Amino acid sequence: MDYVYGPGRNHLFVPGPVNIPEPVIRAMNRNNEDYRSPAVPALTKTLLEDVKKIFKTTTGTPFLIPTTGTGAWESALTNTLSPGDRTISFLIGQFSLLWIDQQQRLNFNVDVVESEWGQGANLDILASKLAADSAHTIKAVCIVHNETATGVTNDLSKVRKLLDEYRHPALFLVDGVSSICALDFRMDEWGVDVALTGSQKALSLPTGMGIVCASPKALEASKTARSVRVFFDWKDYLKFYKMGTFWPYTPSIQLLYGLRAALDLIFEEGLENVIARHSRLGNATRLAVEAWGLKNCTQKEEWYSNTVTAVVVPPYIDSTEIVKRGWKRYNLSLGLGLNKVAGKVFRIGHLGNLNELQLLGCLAGVEMLLKDVGYPVKLGSGVAAACAYLQNNIPLIPSRI
Amino acid sequence: MDYVYGPGRNHLFVPGPVNIPEPVIRAMNRNNEDYRSPAVPALTKTLLEDVKKIFKTTTGTPFLIPTTGTGAWESALTNTLSPGDRTISFLIGQFSLLWIDQQQRLNFNVDVVESEWGQGANLDILASKLAADSAHTIKAVCIVHNETATGVTNDLSKVRKLLDEYRHPALFLVDGVSSICALDFRMDEWGVDVALTGSQKALSLPTGMGIVCASPKALEASKTARSVRVFFDWKDYLKFYKMGTFWPYTPSIQLLYGLRAALDLIFEEGLENVIARHSRLGNATRLAVEAWGLKNCTQKEEWYSNTVTAVVVPPYIDSTEIVKRGWKRYNLSLGLGLNKVAGKVFRIGHLGNLNELQLLGCLAGVEMLLKDVGYPVKLGSGVAAACAYLQNNIPLIPSRI
Amino acid sequence: MDYVYGPGRNHLFVPGPVNIPEPVIRAMNRNNEDYRSPAVPALTKTLLEDVKKIFKTTTGTPFLIPTTGTGAWESALTNTLSPGDRTISFLIGQFSLLWIDQQQRLNFNVDVVESEWGQGANLDILASKLAADSAHTIKAVCIVHNETATGVTNDLSKVRKLLDEYRHPALFLVDGVSSICALDFRMDEWGVDVALTGSQKALSLPTGMGIVCASPKALEASKTARSVRVFFDWKDYLKFYKMGTFWPYTPSIQLLYGLRAALDLIFEEGLENVIARHSRLGNATRLAVEAWGLKNCTQKEEWYSNTVTAVVVPPYIDSTEIVKRGWKRYNLSLGLGLNKVAGKVFRIGHLGNLNELQLLGCLAGVEMLLKDVGYPVKLGSGVAAACAYLQNNIPLIPSRI
Amino acid sequence: MDYVYGPGRNHLFVPGPVNIPEPVIRAMNRNNEDYRSPAVPALTKTLLEDVKKIFKTTTGTPFLIPTTGTGAWESALTNTLSPGDRTISFLIGQFSLLWIDQQQRLNFNVDVVESEWGQGANLDILASKLAADSAHTIKAVCIVHNETATGVTNDLSKVRKLLDEYRHPALFLVDGVSSICALDFRMDEWGVDVALTGSQKALSLPTGMGIVCASPKALEASKTARSVRVFFDWKDYLKFYKMGTFWPYTPSIQLLYGLRAALDLIFEEGLENVIARHSRLGNATRLAVEAWGLKNCTQKEEWYSNTVTAVVVPPYIDSTEIVKRGWKRYNLSLGLGLNKVAGKVFRIGHLGNLNELQLLGCLAGVEMLLKDVGYPVKLGSGVAAACAYLQNNIPLIPSRI
Repeated sequence: MDYVYGPGRNHLFVPGPVNIPEPVIRAMNRNNEDYRSPAVPALTKTLLEDVKKIFKTTTGTPFLIPTTGTGAWESALTNTLSPGDRTISFLIGQFSLLWIDQQQRLNFNVDVVESEWGQGANLDILASKLAADSAHTIKAVCIVHNETATGVTNDLSKVRKLLDEYRHPALFLVDGVSSICALDFRMDEWGVDVALTGSQKALSLPTGMGIVCASPKALEASKTARSVRVFFDWKDYLKFYKMGTFWPYTPSIQLLYGLRAALDLIFEEGLENVIARHSRLGNATRLAVEAWGLKNCTQKEEWYSNTVTAVVVPPYIDSTEIVKRGWKRYNLSLGLGLNKVAGKVFRIGHLGNLNELQLLGCLAGVEMLLKDVGYPVKLGSGVAAACAYLQNNIPLIPSRI
Repeated sequence: MDYVYGPGRNHLFVPGPVNIPEPVIRAMNRNNEDYRSPAVPALTKTLLEDVKKIFKTTTGTPFLIPTTGTGAWESALTNTLSPGDRTISFLIGQFSLLWIDQQQRLNFNVDVVESEWGQGANLDILASKLAADSAHTIKAVCIVHNETATGVTNDLSKVRKLLDEYRHPALFLVDGVSSICALDFRMDEWGVDVALTGSQKALSLPTGMGIVCASPKALEASKTARSVRVFFDWKDYLKFYKMGTFWPYTPSIQLLYGLRAALDLIFEEGLENVIARHSRLGNATRLAVEAWGLKNCTQKEEWYSNTVTAVVVPPYIDSTEIVKRGWKRYNLSLGLGLNKVAGKVFRIGHLGNLNELQLLGCLAGVEMLLKDVGYPVKLGSGVAAACAYLQNNIPLIPSRI
Repeated sequence: MDYVYGPGRNHLFVPGPVNIPEPVIRAMNRNNEDYRSPAVPALTKTLLEDVKKIFKTTTGTPFLIPTTGTGAWESALTNTLSPGDRTISFLIGQFSLLWIDQQQRLNFNVDVVESEWGQGANLDILASKLAADSAHTIKAVCIVHNETATGVTNDLSKVRKLLDEYRHPALFLVDGVSSICALDFRMDEWGVDVALTGSQKALSLPTGMGIVCASPKALEASKTARSVRVFFDWKDYLKFYKMGTFWPYTPSIQLLYGLRAALDLIFEEGLENVIARHSRLGNATRLAVEAWGLKNCTQKEEWYSNTVTAVVVPPYIDSTEIVKRGWKRYNLSLGLGLNKVAGKVFRIGHLGNLNELQLLGCLAGVEMLLKDVGYPVKLGSGVAAACAYLQNNIPLIPSRI
Repeated sequence: MDYVYGPGRNHLFVPGPVNIPEPVIRAMNRNNEDYRSPAVPALTKTLLEDVKKIFKTTTGTPFLIPTTGTGAWESALTNTLSPGDRTISFLIGQFSLLWIDQQQRLNFNVDVVESEWGQGANLDILASKLAADSAHTIKAVCIVHNETATGVTNDLSKVRKLLDEYRHPALFLVDGVSSICALDFRMDEWGVDVALTGSQKALSLPTGMGIVCASPKALEASKTARSVRVFFDWKDYLKFYKMGTFWPYTPSIQLLYGLRAALDLIFEEGLENVIARHSRLGNATRLAVEAWGLKNCTQKEEWYSNTVTAVVVPPYIDSTEIVKRGWKRYNLSLGLGLNKVAGKVFRIGHLGNLNELQLLGCLAGVEMLLKDVGYPVKLGSGVAAACAYLQNNIPLIPSRI
């Protein structure tokens, strides 16, 4: 049933899809149900209410769309913008690149602000563009909160500050695919108009649900946006929300129950504790990278990502080989370097349902892998650095005190 | 964990989502995996090869899209047509209506051929329109193979015959959502250009995968079709097919393994045996309806559907009440009447992984329900009629002989 | 993965192992855990407390033993009796026969009271034996509450009355394997000293847990009972109960969580409702048998069993053939006739997590089977009789009102 | 559903119950089945045949008993010995102690050969006892292959040599609970008469199946052994083996399918590779212990166990505290010190379905724990030592080359 079995557990350290908690796997282990029975709307109602908490919004309207992150992007864009609309979009890695590609193919007038891969969004340029745009030709600022390809987290509060400073009415659209529910994200406080994530990321579910949350301003914009859309049209959802049946087309029953279980676990742990755990895992990983004498692809501390670390290998090493051997020899799944950084970085995802000892096992594996491919790492050095930090910082598991 | 528990099994007789076989539930009971490892392409390759068999095509190109049937429709249309293109589309029930609505919202020039609900597509009108269209303004003929709302199966071979007769180059687009893998469907023989289904129908999986199959002519058309599309764009798939990695964005690992298990079961039973089983269940259901003295919503035998039967209730009964009480009292999930036939029909789905005794339990339940709501049914009459037929027609289970 | 796959669900109508509810399957879908962690004793404590409710005892001490019903028997006997002790035991079918065989092999002096198969325990003989036993040589009265082979339920309250009438101090040991949690059973009220069941029966779990409940008098007896025992010795359990760790050897983590889920479902439905549901299913089955013109193996109404019905076939039919064909053709699992009634009866188990429509599907299948083997049944007749009764008696599902 | 949830996976490093592979969890995720259908004997037949391979026997007869290791012990003893029979039994730790206790309670005349905990069985004393026993009063030599409490592996080939040397006909009974299928074990070559294990150990299944294998000599002995037994009596199994239905009482359907999947995985990896993997994990653990400056409870290399390592803590540390904190803080389950070594050792189980990175995560956790409780460990030291060894010794995963 598995295509390539290895003994023991697979160590899944790609930044998505991530490890699913056992209680969530259990919750999804079920037959289909009629989604028109009273049970499914009752369940959906709790999900729509609770999912807002992970966006930190009380005013937003969530949509649980049977799609992936790519579809969630399309939903965010086509519901709020019209062909020809000018967007500002930051190109800082493979996923921001793909979103820009989508924006272009959807016929927006994309004003690309590019940075070197490993840097964050250039907000100075955003400032100057906003300053110059008294005519308000900019209809939306589109930004990836956390660029999964390079491990770069952008400071969204600064974007909001700039928009406010220049009193600019542009919509603020955020790809939170590898951030929301793992990094600090505040939809209402930061005035985000559309935020989105995918089920297989911090929520630690299977792939298949794009979660999009729209501010009142975004909902308003959707009434006049002229981008062609049907499957992704919020209007159909809103119609069924009003009717109390919620679904314009068939949802995945399994993902609904899975999301219920996932949210329950997150709230049981505490959202702030979840974010703190990601911070611990991020710090521990970076300390290990430093101890190995390797460079983080992320160029400045302010952009460090707590969900994924892209590790730069020396020029004489092919990072792809590390990923391949990890899988072949250690049952370890690491992230490849993508596009511009292919062969140059490998990525350690520390996202989703994960704890410290899982990460330490991964780090030990990476040390052996580095040695395997000829890098003169001191075995144990990264683990030692991570442990020294973690040993002083891991709290007791609240439910077990 | 369940929102409204009832003792014993839920009797799921809506025409989708349908019952998932236990081996498929098992196959999907798993953690996420890195979809960029060698295992997932190896698995995907077998799926793309084998899924063609259920479409009966050797020349088609399948796409396994993380979406629902609605998304699969959109994929079929936007990849092959351009805004303003004239389509002929048959309005015969709620699902054909929704597809037409989508076509209109995607800015095609939809030439709607309407029939009374309960009748099949009016192919005489198609003939006259084709005859009149020497200029070939018709770019596509769009037809729902099996209208799930009324239980009407259209004769696709006739559509092909007409297209051939008039040597008309229009694309032939088929919604096979509630037909493919349950009813006789022959993509290559009937010259279908795009056929599609959803995972939660005859394949008996959870919702979440739209399966679209394109003929070489459809692929060719996609090169020039100007409908805006990104998420649904076949081009991205084809690019990754060439690279051998197959996925432009993250697939659901669980659905891939689930599809593998589902196809294995179908091939183990034999596709023709699966179709024959649906025919048996359809016949048995219709005999029961007749024995109850009720009318089939489908007006002529030539349109009888072997995957769903819409039963017309007398005017003094509200069919919605039957569905509600079935759920409240018998743990039975029947299909509601939709739109024009709301309150007038209830639907028995006999689609997907189902056997005769399951259906007989449902029919017995319907008899009690009919009595509950005041219809003077003779208890046991429908079951007797169904049994009399089935008793002579059920073969031994091949694997158990 | 399945050895002999058939399409659709298997219709499991043997009187054990029975259908497991989906929520219980889910609860058991888990990795192992350290049973010495604080979590497992916390869970166990709730189980020991709650399992007493299904025995209707407040004074009993339950043991959850990793064994089957046969092991539970042995636990009941060896902890309370010494070699050579006189027991009175009723032989009324295959399972009481096997228990007697065990008693004999354990070197008790078994005073067998035999009845014709299809009759209940002969309590008149018990009365006379008790009357004659002023010396109290009888150490235990052993009785099967519900004989699974013939579908005979004994009246335990009468046994208690006799013991009281003759002021006889004999222990009262009850095999409740196919009764407890499905039939009316009152450990405290009826002064039962040891009662037992197996997880795969009315509790609707997998096989593997023998549940034994001992009265204070039985516990007292265990202190002096000289039967050799180690694995089944209550003393080891009691020692660990005192320590609060509960387990003298490794329990099945999965069955513990499964039992938790099973009890939750039972309490959610209500134990009295569960018993009423079994009564409905028993009545419906007997009405069908009558409509078919067949005889119930149970000779008098006072012994009718609400968990299993043994149906007598005409002499010209081999009941084994019915069971075989049910499995080969209808994916239906019926119970064979055992030992003396082999070939003469087949059994319909209506035990555990089951609802009315499931039973009706089974009854329809049996009708076809009867016809298949040459019995001139009127198709639909049994279902009609069952429906006529059920239609007036099934309550709304409480959680769905 | 979990009693004390912690984020991420539980790190299960007790020497049983051990981690269940995902494919095995999947295989057991199923409803009950009628064990009297043709499917279950067909499945059982393959199990009985294949389970012999893990015992390395062609002449042995296996029994799959619904019980635990304690029950398997009782099965081995009661089927082969009579009350009063003299056994030689080695007391070297808690589990050998418990077996001896059982032997005494079963009324054998147990000749206990005691060693200090941390040492292996004293075979010199065995030799002298055999030498002195020309009257063949010794009926059985009972030995625990791997003492789970202290991590001591006895050399069974030497026991056989001694028996042969003295031409002694005593039965050779082996507790292989924490060895068989993980350590080198050769039933036929070493002339073992009864060997046994439990499902929750190296087979990596849930608890609930005791697997006992009897040599022809043991089977012969069972014909005359006078120990009282019913549930554990091999005779009942042999009777049903002959009939081809295999089961004297209801087996756990789930464990049967689980065992099938577990054996498939073991054979896919290769039994010798499984044993080599355990050797790697044992070596790595011992190197870590050494690097930490701690003592292995096992006093000599010849007794080192590849399935569990008992680590001795300095006198000023309570090892129980380490285990408690591991669970409370790191979601790590370590084994407690038992009885004589309570508080003095903690145990790392490296048994069953486990790979190197899992172990390294555990070792990193232990390092932090040691520091937590005040032991001046150099963080990273154990992991470094383990990695240095593993990096040179882990082979590529065969299926992934």
